[in-house]
Amino acid sequence: MDHRQKKLESLFNPRSIGILGASSDLNKVSGRPLAYMLRFGYPGKIYPINPKYKEIAGVQCFPSLAEVPGEIDALMVIIPAEEILANLEKALHKGVKVAIIVSGGFAETGDEGRKLQQKLTDFARKTGMLIYGPNTTGFLSLVNRTVATFSQGLEVIGDMVPGRTGLITQSGAFGAAIFVRAMRVGLGLSHWAATGNEADLEFCDFLEYMVDDPHTRVIAGFLAGVEEGQKLIQGLDRAAQKGKPVVLLKVGGTEAGERAAFSHTGAIVGSARAYDAVFRQKGVLLAQDIQELIDYSMAFCLTPLPRGKKVGIMTESGGGGILLTERCSELGLEVSEIFGPTRERLKGVVPSLGSIKNPVDLTGQSLSNPSLVKGSLEVMLDAEDFDIVVPLLLMSKATAEKKAKDLWQLFQDLRSNKILVVCWPEGPKEWAQFLIERGIFVSVTPTRCAQTLKALFTYADFQRRYGGRKTLDEGLINLPADRQKRALEVIQKATRRGESSLNEYESKKILQAYGIPTAKEALSTSPDEAAMIAREIGYPVVAKLISPEIPHKTEAGVISLNIQSEEQLRRDFQKIIKKGKAYRPDARIDGILIQEMVLEQAVETIVGLSQERPFGPVILFGLGGIFVEIMQDVAIRVLPVTRSDVEGMIPQIQGYKILQGVRGKRPADVEALSMVLLQVACLARELKEVIAELDINPLMVLEEGNGVKAVDALICLNKEKLSLSKA
Amino acid sequence: MDHRQKKLESLFNPRSIGILGASSDLNKVSGRPLAYMLRFGYPGKIYPINPKYKEIAGVQCFPSLAEVPGEIDALMVIIPAEEILANLEKALHKGVKVAIIVSGGFAETGDEGRKLQQKLTDFARKTGMLIYGPNTTGFLSLVNRTVATFSQGLEVIGDMVPGRTGLITQSGAFGAAIFVRAMRVGLGLSHWAATGNEADLEFCDFLEYMVDDPHTRVIAGFLAGVEEGQKLIQGLDRAAQKGKPVVLLKVGGTEAGERAAFSHTGAIVGSARAYDAVFRQKGVLLAQDIQELIDYSMAFCLTPLPRGKKVGIMTESGGGGILLTERCSELGLEVSEIFGPTRERLKGVVPSLGSIKNPVDLTGQSLSNPSLVKGSLEVMLDAEDFDIVVPLLLMSKATAEKKAKDLWQLFQDLRSNKILVVCWPEGPKEWAQFLIERGIFVSVTPTRCAQTLKALFTYADFQRRYGGRKTLDEGLINLPADRQKRALEVIQKATRRGESSLNEYESKKILQAYGIPTAKEALSTSPDEAAMIAREIGYPVVAKLISPEIPHKTEAGVISLNIQSEEQLRRDFQKIIKKGKAYRPDARIDGILIQEMVLEQAVETIVGLSQERPFGPVILFGLGGIFVEIMQDVAIRVLPVTRSDVEGMIPQIQGYKILQGVRGKRPADVEALSMVLLQVACLARELKEVIAELDINPLMVLEEGNGVKAVDALICLNKEKLSLSKA
Repeated sequence: MDHRQKKLESLFNPRSIGILGASSDLNKVSGRPLAYMLRFGYPGKIYPINPKYKEIAGVQCFPSLAEVPGEIDALMVIIPAEEILANLEKALHKGVKVAIIVSGGFAETGDEGRKLQQKLTDFARKTGMLIYGPNTTGFLSLVNRTVATFSQGLEVIGDMVPGRTGLITQSGAFGAAIFVRAMRVGLGLSHWAATGNEADLEFCDFLEYMVDDPHTRVIAGFLAGVEEGQKLIQGLDRAAQKGKPVVLLKVGGTEAGERAAFSHTGAIVGSARAYDAVFRQKGVLLAQDIQELIDYSMAFCLTPLPRGKKVGIMTESGGGGILLTERCSELGLEVSEIFGPTRERLKGVVPSLGSIKNPVDLTGQSLSNPSLVKGSLEVMLDAEDFDIVVPLLLMSKATAEKKAKDLWQLFQDLRSNKILVVCWPEGPKEWAQFLIERGIFVSVTPTRCAQTLKALFTYADFQRRYGGRKTLDEGLINLPADRQKRALEVIQKATRRGESSLNEYESKKILQAYGIPTAKEALSTSPDEAAMIAREIGYPVVAKLISPEIPHKTEAGVISLNIQSEEQLRRDFQKIIKKGKAYRPDARIDGILIQEMVLEQAVETIVGLSQERPFGPVILFGLGGIFVEIMQDVAIRVLPVTRSDVEGMIPQIQGYKILQGVRGKRPADVEALSMVLLQVACLARELKEVIAELDINPLMVLEEGNGVKAVDALICLNKEKLSLSKA
Repeated sequence: MDHRQKKLESLFNPRSIGILGASSDLNKVSGRPLAYMLRFGYPGKIYPINPKYKEIAGVQCFPSLAEVPGEIDALMVIIPAEEILANLEKALHKGVKVAIIVSGGFAETGDEGRKLQQKLTDFARKTGMLIYGPNTTGFLSLVNRTVATFSQGLEVIGDMVPGRTGLITQSGAFGAAIFVRAMRVGLGLSHWAATGNEADLEFCDFLEYMVDDPHTRVIAGFLAGVEEGQKLIQGLDRAAQKGKPVVLLKVGGTEAGERAAFSHTGAIVGSARAYDAVFRQKGVLLAQDIQELIDYSMAFCLTPLPRGKKVGIMTESGGGGILLTERCSELGLEVSEIFGPTRERLKGVVPSLGSIKNPVDLTGQSLSNPSLVKGSLEVMLDAEDFDIVVPLLLMSKATAEKKAKDLWQLFQDLRSNKILVVCWPEGPKEWAQFLIERGIFVSVTPTRCAQTLKALFTYADFQRRYGGRKTLDEGLINLPADRQKRALEVIQKATRRGESSLNEYESKKILQAYGIPTAKEALSTSPDEAAMIAREIGYPVVAKLISPEIPHKTEAGVISLNIQSEEQLRRDFQKIIKKGKAYRPDARIDGILIQEMVLEQAVETIVGLSQERPFGPVILFGLGGIFVEIMQDVAIRVLPVTRSDVEGMIPQIQGYKILQGVRGKRPADVEALSMVLLQVACLARELKEVIAELDINPLMVLEEGNGVKAVDALICLNKEKLSLSKA
């Protein structure tokens, strides 16, 4: 990776760029890159390569790669797909470190193209040359003045605005729309890369580069999906460690969206809920639209992270103030009424017709007396009551300059624990720009302003929770020392029998090996044995048939609940065996499981482990019964997890209140439940080679202090990995 | 109302406007109205009135109202609050029909101001002069070139753009921001009124005017709340009947938002969920932000309503196409893969590297061949596959003119059942405007485009359901003829006893009077009587203490479930009496209610009736237990209701699937449930004078075909109305 990252520097800041297939028609795809390099002043050497021309636009043109005099760091390739590989071989001799393959005709066209693209991938792996694309619009490094794109985005902007947001887009044309919007609203970019088909360099490589890049403070992206989920997790994790916010516009979560993504790039997106889990775990901010992506990026570039979520609003417009207050409140920020000394101080400043409650409402009187804005903000910025202070300004032309300059003054004197963000609907553009250039974030509508504040707070909160807690802290988790040995013994026994899943009894043995409490139970093979076990457990008991051919016991009727006496147990034992044989005459019967009947007050939950593309194992938690089925009320985490990832699962579900105790019930033992989730996370990590799926359903969570009991469980083995490890 | 509406014409299109308190400083609040009238060319007579000046800006100024030569239709009042009433008396003699009171110093300042404002209200009621304001920024009629405002919005726009959206804002300054944005993006307005403190003319009056106004096709508003909910309902209902969409940016749904609204206007917002219900019942579209308000308004102005929700997307950008597809799909629109003849026809037009699946992806090739856009759209607009066709265009300058003109051509030939909407992120402004001016809606981001399509579809769907079904169709509802008589007898009996609520037994008598099935039951006053009743009902039974002092039976332990025998019943009878006396020694005991124990498979639901401000009675439905308590999963309708309003309540709740049958259970009797809701709606309408609240909890919904059973119920009487009717 390090090696690749170094080579990427040759893309982002190349000493020279070749353009293989350069055209003299500067309006064509193959002509525009040179035109843009000249127009925006790329400072390195440019080598157009095309036997047809001696020069293009005053730049010497070379007939072939071989005849280029110097070394070429980065080579743009704009020639027919089938000619590319042969030319890349030649490029090796010119020291090309990155080939930017603009040409299409690869995976996006079907099977033939996919094969051709695979050859590019193989070439890159074999030679170490980085392949960027194919089918890419190309790339801009605004801080290095590197221009290697034919994007029409450059047609419509005035100048480029260098800045501190790095933009990565899995789309050329739509990426250009984001790029242009960013330039138009004054969000400077450090770099912009459209990733193309990702034969070699992929979204995650650009992400890794920007994580380390000192010019980039915020990473923004348009993402459909990645092939290697764990690579994405690593990149996001490093960004989180470095405190660089990642803001993504993510697509591909619906069936129709996935189909659209597949026909565009030939790539499969994967599980939307697993992506969401990763974003939550790594503090990624999700934007719903271009403007939100830009708002968030700009806010993170300009503004430090807020200490908390207490918002103080000062407004010149009553209606705008209500809307801003409402949206902040809906998004979970606090806009609390002002009391105490701050209220008293505000009384001295705010006109009597105004309000000092929060929002502090100056009413229209600040029109004739714009100093009111500064006066009230001085009090609010000085007070301990707020983490974030937002003036909502009127559009008035006459007072704009004074207000902007006053804000700039206040901003310079800002205390380190305060954040000042401005909301200025339809405000004069030059004065909004004045503030942005000086580092003050300006939002243009109350709703967008509130969303941006929420993003700032969410990331700040993430960083507070994230700090330092990288591992699962196994020491703090109740895990028997011999767990792996015990688990593998059970699994080996089952695989020797040729089975791909464990039965309920075996599955619970694995749970027990990891310290997860299960209902008392034992397997019996005769009525006498069953009676003995039941005596030990104590009546009432449950009896269940254990057979690899009959996994769905309720459906087959081979389960008997609430058995009150030995007499009933012996009768039910025979009945269950009979029913099992009637249901599947060929079924192998391993015995009858005799189990404690859980009678205590409990909340039914489900804890699971499954595989979701493109990330691998995920753990899952939800309330039992209708909650998961009807409400889809589940919390998911992708492995690897931190302790706080796991602990966050329980309060995340909508039905959390049920665990806290409702309708006079005592709270459930959330601590014991949390421990099970941590144990399952460890199990998943240690046994990921052999276990594909685990379903504890139900896990009964008893009242506070009484622990939990796994009542039913099923484990599916990882066939692929098991046969691999045999080979 | 009709009389008021006619007078409102004198506001919207006055032959003359007086400005009482006009200033010669045209930058002041009292100077700007005249300046704007002159600048934007108000065609009627203008009479500035101020003893200080002979003329202002070339217009003759009069020393007093009396000295104005002609009649004054509308009078702007910009003088100190305390001088206003005396001047209004004088204005009566000048034939003033509407006084636009710009001055502040009324309800927004506290109790004194509230009293002064009440005097204005009284004056208006007494004299019939309409009072607009006080504390209003004023008003514009763009179609009539009437200008009566000091809003700074007029400072920053170039020219006014008349159009077909009427804008009503409960905010002057924020309303101005909406107005300016509308002008800037080319959404023409018919009128804009900022309502001020609403001493007389209020939001609903402007709404009513615009419903009837031939210039206005769409009504947009910024709304905090109204005083008389039923007046709002009437206005919205008339708008719905006339097919005029109402788009609102509504605030005041959160505690903080409500506090902000109260300090701004001194008015209480009311129940947010009741407003939401009204908006749902009357097809109001809710916007989250200024831009959404404008997008929806513009789309409704330009575009007919779609026949269905099948969306065909053609895109020049793969990434943008995915995002648009995804958002449409998330919002419930259909973006289905294309098959059959349309697919075949597209194959002949779309380049082989593109996609014909929906989105139809032209890839970058339309850059060199912009005719591809027209070619593929021709096929899509001709096909039966879509109700709405959306081209997503690239920003390219070079091809913009051709594409815009081609779209204009296609639009002129559009079939009546098709809608064409354009999404053009960062598209060239002049060509986007070219399309808008010719009647084609252009959206600037995929997300906003999808939201707007959803709004179009939602309203079209509302109109299809709404048509003609104005009443509750009592003939189709199972209602006993003597219901009111029977109900009133029960109520009178209770009120004679001086009670403000009915006990369970009496409450169910009311339900029975309205045909609502209840569990079999009768009241007993001795163990013998109880035993006789139980024999008739059949064991097991339930026994409950009926006492006005002990409404919470479970808490007091005066309820006994699952009584299996007469012996047990006689024992429990005594036990319950004893417990009741121990719990409240002073309790009057009316008897023991003996009730059938409902053993059948059933879904517990809650049906209720309560009062919510500012609308009055609402009916409520939800699933029992945790669903209402934890998930707040309830459907609400404000009275009056239509049959389809009521029928929509059941599928609206999240837990609807539970009623449809899950986990192998048979579906519940939704038809019988729906009948109960209709019966409760009738009960609410007929007994609204006497019943304030009704709570049926639980209403057991049995399996399909088996009906429903109300198991417990409580009715609270409307004390205020009852004592009124006595008086």
